[in-house]
Amino acid sequence: MVSDFEVSKMQYHAEVTIGLKSGMLDPEATTIKKALEHLGYPTNSLQMQKRFILDLDAASRDEARFKVDEMCNRLLANPVIHNYEIVLEESG
Amino acid sequence: MVSDFEVSKMQYHAEVTIGLKSGMLDPEATTIKKALEHLGYPTNSLQMQKRFILDLDAASRDEARFKVDEMCNRLLANPVIHNYEIVLEESG
Repeated sequence: MVSDFEVSKMQYHAEVTIGLKSGMLDPEATTIKKALEHLGYPTNSLQMQKRFILDLDAASRDEARFKVDEMCNRLLANPVIHNYEIVLEESG
Repeated sequence: MVSDFEVSKMQYHAEVTIGLKSGMLDPEATTIKKALEHLGYPTNSLQMQKRFILDLDAASRDEARFKVDEMCNRLLANPVIHNYEIVLEESG
């Protein structure tokens, strides 16, 4: 007989938004701002962010948040220069 | 005497989110998904998006939306492979 001892896992949906900390130069954004100006679309300010939308399994909301936080710190973002924001919801 | 005929401009704040159309392959996202797995953080799905946060002047909300739409079509996105979403609000 197989064990019926099983950890139930929930699925969580996370949206991670990563941007440069204020004060950090963003040459890509500056270039795009200038290019838009040349095309006739001046802007007063332009910032860029990256977004990761992911689904993961975890035993609890806290575990899911911990995991996504670790993903950011270890791979997705560079904590020295980036800020990140995690929006998490249960998805089933 | 200088003319007091002046078009009043409002400032608008726009958040543009750009992602690949469904069905388009995203090798960067696939690579990051694999890298997360190797680090011990498996995900069920992972997508990437780009975000532009910009402020612009326009005479009306419609004009602002039209301008941002043109920016997307002409520079920020590639309409053949990307979807984009514009969230616009008056900022002063």
